Amino acid sequence: MGRPELFEAPAPVAPEKEIEIKEIERIIAAKCTCECNYEFKETKPFTPRRDSGYASPDEDSMDSSPIPSRSSSPAPTLARTIEDCVVLHKSQKTDELRDYELIELVLRGAVPAHSLEKALKDPLRAVKVRRSVISRTMSTRAQAALDSSNLPWQDYDYSSIMGCCAENVIGFMPLPVGVAGPLTIDGQPVFLPMATTEGTLIASTSRGCKLLNTAGGVTTVATNDGMSRGPCGKFDNVIQAAEAKAYMESAEGLAAMKEAFSRTTRHGKLTGCKARMAGPYLYLRFTATTGEAMGMNMMGKGCQQVLNSLRNELGFPHMKIVTVSGNYCTDKKPASINWTEGRGKSVVAEAIIPAEEVQKTLRTSVAGLCQLNISKNLVGSALAGTSAGGFNAHASNIVAAMFLATGQDPAQVMASANCLTLFEE
Amino acid sequence: MGRPELFEAPAPVAPEKEIEIKEIERIIAAKCTCECNYEFKETKPFTPRRDSGYASPDEDSMDSSPIPSRSSSPAPTLARTIEDCVVLHKSQKTDELRDYELIELVLRGAVPAHSLEKALKDPLRAVKVRRSVISRTMSTRAQAALDSSNLPWQDYDYSSIMGCCAENVIGFMPLPVGVAGPLTIDGQPVFLPMATTEGTLIASTSRGCKLLNTAGGVTTVATNDGMSRGPCGKFDNVIQAAEAKAYMESAEGLAAMKEAFSRTTRHGKLTGCKARMAGPYLYLRFTATTGEAMGMNMMGKGCQQVLNSLRNELGFPHMKIVTVSGNYCTDKKPASINWTEGRGKSVVAEAIIPAEEVQKTLRTSVAGLCQLNISKNLVGSALAGTSAGGFNAHASNIVAAMFLATGQDPAQVMASANCLTLFEE
Amino acid sequence: MGRPELFEAPAPVAPEKEIEIKEIERIIAAKCTCECNYEFKETKPFTPRRDSGYASPDEDSMDSSPIPSRSSSPAPTLARTIEDCVVLHKSQKTDELRDYELIELVLRGAVPAHSLEKALKDPLRAVKVRRSVISRTMSTRAQAALDSSNLPWQDYDYSSIMGCCAENVIGFMPLPVGVAGPLTIDGQPVFLPMATTEGTLIASTSRGCKLLNTAGGVTTVATNDGMSRGPCGKFDNVIQAAEAKAYMESAEGLAAMKEAFSRTTRHGKLTGCKARMAGPYLYLRFTATTGEAMGMNMMGKGCQQVLNSLRNELGFPHMKIVTVSGNYCTDKKPASINWTEGRGKSVVAEAIIPAEEVQKTLRTSVAGLCQLNISKNLVGSALAGTSAGGFNAHASNIVAAMFLATGQDPAQVMASANCLTLFEE
Amino acid sequence: MGRPELFEAPAPVAPEKEIEIKEIERIIAAKCTCECNYEFKETKPFTPRRDSGYASPDEDSMDSSPIPSRSSSPAPTLARTIEDCVVLHKSQKTDELRDYELIELVLRGAVPAHSLEKALKDPLRAVKVRRSVISRTMSTRAQAALDSSNLPWQDYDYSSIMGCCAENVIGFMPLPVGVAGPLTIDGQPVFLPMATTEGTLIASTSRGCKLLNTAGGVTTVATNDGMSRGPCGKFDNVIQAAEAKAYMESAEGLAAMKEAFSRTTRHGKLTGCKARMAGPYLYLRFTATTGEAMGMNMMGKGCQQVLNSLRNELGFPHMKIVTVSGNYCTDKKPASINWTEGRGKSVVAEAIIPAEEVQKTLRTSVAGLCQLNISKNLVGSALAGTSAGGFNAHASNIVAAMFLATGQDPAQVMASANCLTLFEE
Repeated sequence: MGRPELFEAPAPVAPEKEIEIKEIERIIAAKCTCECNYEFKETKPFTPRRDSGYASPDEDSMDSSPIPSRSSSPAPTLARTIEDCVVLHKSQKTDELRDYELIELVLRGAVPAHSLEKALKDPLRAVKVRRSVISRTMSTRAQAALDSSNLPWQDYDYSSIMGCCAENVIGFMPLPVGVAGPLTIDGQPVFLPMATTEGTLIASTSRGCKLLNTAGGVTTVATNDGMSRGPCGKFDNVIQAAEAKAYMESAEGLAAMKEAFSRTTRHGKLTGCKARMAGPYLYLRFTATTGEAMGMNMMGKGCQQVLNSLRNELGFPHMKIVTVSGNYCTDKKPASINWTEGRGKSVVAEAIIPAEEVQKTLRTSVAGLCQLNISKNLVGSALAGTSAGGFNAHASNIVAAMFLATGQDPAQVMASANCLTLFEE
Repeated sequence: MGRPELFEAPAPVAPEKEIEIKEIERIIAAKCTCECNYEFKETKPFTPRRDSGYASPDEDSMDSSPIPSRSSSPAPTLARTIEDCVVLHKSQKTDELRDYELIELVLRGAVPAHSLEKALKDPLRAVKVRRSVISRTMSTRAQAALDSSNLPWQDYDYSSIMGCCAENVIGFMPLPVGVAGPLTIDGQPVFLPMATTEGTLIASTSRGCKLLNTAGGVTTVATNDGMSRGPCGKFDNVIQAAEAKAYMESAEGLAAMKEAFSRTTRHGKLTGCKARMAGPYLYLRFTATTGEAMGMNMMGKGCQQVLNSLRNELGFPHMKIVTVSGNYCTDKKPASINWTEGRGKSVVAEAIIPAEEVQKTLRTSVAGLCQLNISKNLVGSALAGTSAGGFNAHASNIVAAMFLATGQDPAQVMASANCLTLFEE
Repeated sequence: MGRPELFEAPAPVAPEKEIEIKEIERIIAAKCTCECNYEFKETKPFTPRRDSGYASPDEDSMDSSPIPSRSSSPAPTLARTIEDCVVLHKSQKTDELRDYELIELVLRGAVPAHSLEKALKDPLRAVKVRRSVISRTMSTRAQAALDSSNLPWQDYDYSSIMGCCAENVIGFMPLPVGVAGPLTIDGQPVFLPMATTEGTLIASTSRGCKLLNTAGGVTTVATNDGMSRGPCGKFDNVIQAAEAKAYMESAEGLAAMKEAFSRTTRHGKLTGCKARMAGPYLYLRFTATTGEAMGMNMMGKGCQQVLNSLRNELGFPHMKIVTVSGNYCTDKKPASINWTEGRGKSVVAEAIIPAEEVQKTLRTSVAGLCQLNISKNLVGSALAGTSAGGFNAHASNIVAAMFLATGQDPAQVMASANCLTLFEE
Repeated sequence: MGRPELFEAPAPVAPEKEIEIKEIERIIAAKCTCECNYEFKETKPFTPRRDSGYASPDEDSMDSSPIPSRSSSPAPTLARTIEDCVVLHKSQKTDELRDYELIELVLRGAVPAHSLEKALKDPLRAVKVRRSVISRTMSTRAQAALDSSNLPWQDYDYSSIMGCCAENVIGFMPLPVGVAGPLTIDGQPVFLPMATTEGTLIASTSRGCKLLNTAGGVTTVATNDGMSRGPCGKFDNVIQAAEAKAYMESAEGLAAMKEAFSRTTRHGKLTGCKARMAGPYLYLRFTATTGEAMGMNMMGKGCQQVLNSLRNELGFPHMKIVTVSGNYCTDKKPASINWTEGRGKSVVAEAIIPAEEVQKTLRTSVAGLCQLNISKNLVGSALAGTSAGGFNAHASNIVAAMFLATGQDPAQVMASANCLTLFEE
């Protein structure tokens, strides 16, 4: 999957430090962002907010309570001052803190919310605490209290996503997954998994599959295979840029760049480089096969290596790297270059549908269907100024649903749903 | 949310019928699509497929078994012939069938897979049975056995999505939801919920929020509010079409169409109609405010009423409705008309970031950042032929993640992520 | 130059025939399309239309009379009946007819207007007669009488354009040609000829040249050289189309197609073939170097030969040629493919202008100029949905003027004026 | 016609000055840019360059000599020193100088080439002298000697273009003008004047007209009338910009701006204002009817007045005018906004052609023609990424030829040739 390009985030870490008294004093003095006017170490027990479902600390089990709470009857013997809490945390014993203590610390800025997983070594508890923290933060209380939210958070193995998929996690969104089909593709019946909340989308896709199957299903051919990444380099002048362009588009240059690329991956192979100048700026569109992977990370590493080689080994030390992605890829934005050049896998599919089946299933004639396709998918799209492959009815719905059901990046729908539909009698 | 346009699906119903002997005979004779060579009413108990985790019928409880199975030791006294099973199903007692019996019936075509919820009156069990059916269908066994799949299916209230969100459900995809921010928007700190599996996306968005907050956060203005739907009508000739166009774009015509639209909704208000001819075809782009809703269904009903009124009341009986969506909307496809006219809510946001913060957080200078924005988001996109709003770094990532976290349609990312980023010193 | 694609015109010929009495009778009976109610062989002399400048037949010399006329005092001895006139014409002695007789014959349909050059063997006289004919045709008299028109027609060597440049000629449009510059291009000062009627265009271009020369003029690099033609073929199915595509994009296929192409021209060389499928349709974008020529005719012949070879020699007999230009070229239409792939010669030019010269000549600062370029040529164009190279101020004005001054096709301005302007401090 | 936007040229004037000795001395010392090593006041007569057609000074009559020359036998009594020549020129007696003297002065920089018309008060002689000057300038002699050029310059009334159409004139380009048609448009037969050098274009257009006439010609409707100009203003922040936008799009704002616009013209009427923000920048697209005129100058003046009023009278003093044309018009560049919004006059034309005529004239079937239109003008253009109205075969050829024949701006072909062609059985 692509990575955010402008703002490369450092891994959200909680660096270990010496415990400093000043830091503890700052935290004790800090104004809690929650408006609870809560006095720490208060002897009078809390009145539990029953309506919100907040459990008391001693009921603090994962199974029974959706979200923890500062709550009734803390056992007096366990009462800790906030100073104690901070010290515990600083001593790497954050997991010994009670939820309500931890919430307080986070609200006072003593524990960064994003580091809870690391500090607690218990991702599920981290999610639970984080929800409470956010529910109590002034900024969000008015708008959408997480504590009354239906967003589920339990029964999820958060360790599987920690450090690779998401940060600052507060739960998960369960998208219903259904299957459409089977659709006979090149002779093989295949079910299409779709994750969607758009009613009838799966049913109507199924209906389409059934119709397509009536005369043997669809025949497909792959017409392109090449993921792309489009860095931008800058030269001192157009002469230099043109020399680099000529080299990169030559057989010799491509061979050298292929070799450089291959040092970073065994799965991907650089297949081409298209270079375009804008004054002394040189925009490169590297394409590579990436095997079964979508391959943006593979591309990123490979292209970086190619750029380094160009500068250090292949004779272009003057090239300054402006960005590894100069939007000439083009990644997750609508762009004609993806439509005319292809990006990733391109496929053409064909099916023959008997006229009587069209009549029976769609209750229209073949001629009517062909005319509709012209009026809507060709002419209508043309009038709307659809330059980058929007000559279809709603490919994006199906592509988005299948991407979500199969763990692909929904933002890639931008280019992956580009297609043109033809109907012919 | 928009609906699939070409193939309107009938509700997936299981009509009640008389029990016909012939139907039962057909089912008994039917070849099971599973390759198990399984003899029904077999007395020898099954050897449970331990490796697949299939439970025996008598262990058939939801909590312990992920997927049901034809399994060991069916109590002999309970053995039913397939004929018995069909009769039970036909008698509306499908829920009395054991899982393995039901699976057999579905595989033989006696019970449509999509009607299991209705037949069983137990959506969770329906999902469980459907998973087994699909796992055993020849078409998919080779490729991806659902029984060894990690796709979760338990602990989900399927009744909430039945009949409105998804069909043929086999489980759900749990997308981790994290929060970025808070981002101070017009003076109010707001957390941004994001559902994504793209590592560091949330963290880097948070980092961006922090940076944007350094001098007070972002100021926003809404510049457009109008959802659109683009039907296509056909007239006998261009004269007729031009007359209709003139009327629809007149104050009088708009008033009449507003009235018609308002009959179908109290929330939406028709605000405009843009008409474009392609020969005798007239493409209309109705725009309406839709309150807090995305509003495509509202638009669909309202536009249908307007079209009916135009034909029946307002003097255009010759207009044939080619389609209620002629891609002139444009819904979920890249289109310049959405970029130049707007679709839904359009917003412009502005922030001032102190130079030292840019240096500290992004480790670059303001001048460098401005130059990067020109090279990548303006020039790079221009070279890539980005006609419809792709003048940004990766807005689609954030929009897709927020849409998914808030239950919005991810296919709408197509147009919703269109934006242009400006940086200025 | 490209040729009209849909409607290939046969050469406008006047075939020689036997003189048929019936034909002559038809012509005599024919209603003259002129409303003059003129009786042929009338003895009463005409009243000359002095105001229109029509000369009498006996004054029928090219030098003195702009347009001939049916006029006063035809010498009675020379009076011919219309029958005589037709016979003369049929006997290949059209040049012996007087202008007013010829006009009458054309108006009655006896002589096609477009064949006058051939019939008279005197192109200048043909133009003169044609003007009179059109002036007297009912259809145009009301709107714009050519006889009072300023459109010049004399002092022009029509033989140089006959049969190659224009048909049905009635005169010529004299476009003033001025020179801008000289502009120092790669060290050589060059004057830029410009044909235009847009006041100040040449002067301001000159001013621009002067400014560009202040630090040595512009440096240019040619980045692409390849004219393109985009035929469309149809196959029986996508499998066949994909096989053809694979072959055409292979080294072997390209070599064979190059050979075929080379049979038709010594100047052009096929350099590439990009193939794109839309179902069973295969769109090809052949590119070739065309030497100094624009080369569309060369491309047309070469591509036709390649298509023939593909069908007859290279193993694709099933390919039906839909059209030799499937708009995939793209010729004289706005298209992103020309912007991303290039068409014809592509050039990047660079110049450095001293800040003080910018201030002196343009009365603005360098920073102001850079900002203007961003606001107008990058952002403004982006907001206007400029996908195909409209990121400049008014390149089309200069390109059109230079094309016209140098005999190039002004319709090519469509793609030739595509460019992106960058300013940098 | 539009004016060059970035570089507004001052009128090319030759200001009257006192005669300064220093100036004369500088000129005498100046190196002539011609390489002739010619000694002024030389007694030995020149050897006339017969091959170049240069006439001697005393043969210096316009009728007989194409281009003047330093030539044989100047009458010795008339010999003037260069000093004398400069004094004559400074004394406003430039017309008394002989051609060869004047050429010398221009080559030495004493007389600006562009001011010859003014200095000589004889535009034809000015053109003649300028041709000689350019022929002798080092920069161009090698490449294209104007003296052997076929570019005509005589028989042209240069006074008609001086100060309004072209500068630095060296002759004129005579484009042959033919007529196609007549085409029956809304019942009226109309000839189409076309200036072109593309052989068969007029003939094939005529053939198309004949075909269109077979069932009564074309029916047209005008669907839009609004020329546009797109200035860009900048505000202090997005709030200010949004306020201005809201006002300009309100009924009240539009009325006030209409009033301001109307102060500058009686012919044009402001009809609308579309405002679009990019951060604090506000791009305005003013549309106005401009009567029979193309109207860019009218728009320019009117918009300038509206902008002034907005700043000075209507409450937006903070708006800084970045440019009166921010490419949001969009003038002479390919842009989707022109395609979706229209610019100038928009017309839809329709014709019915009998099937047998299609067969007879085009030698194809109606079905074949419809299929060709789909494959080429809809699908082929779609594959080529034609966002801005390139869904036709070659409209630009005909539009360019008619614009040139009728004195319209050929650079406007960019948007004026945008159209979509539909064929239907």
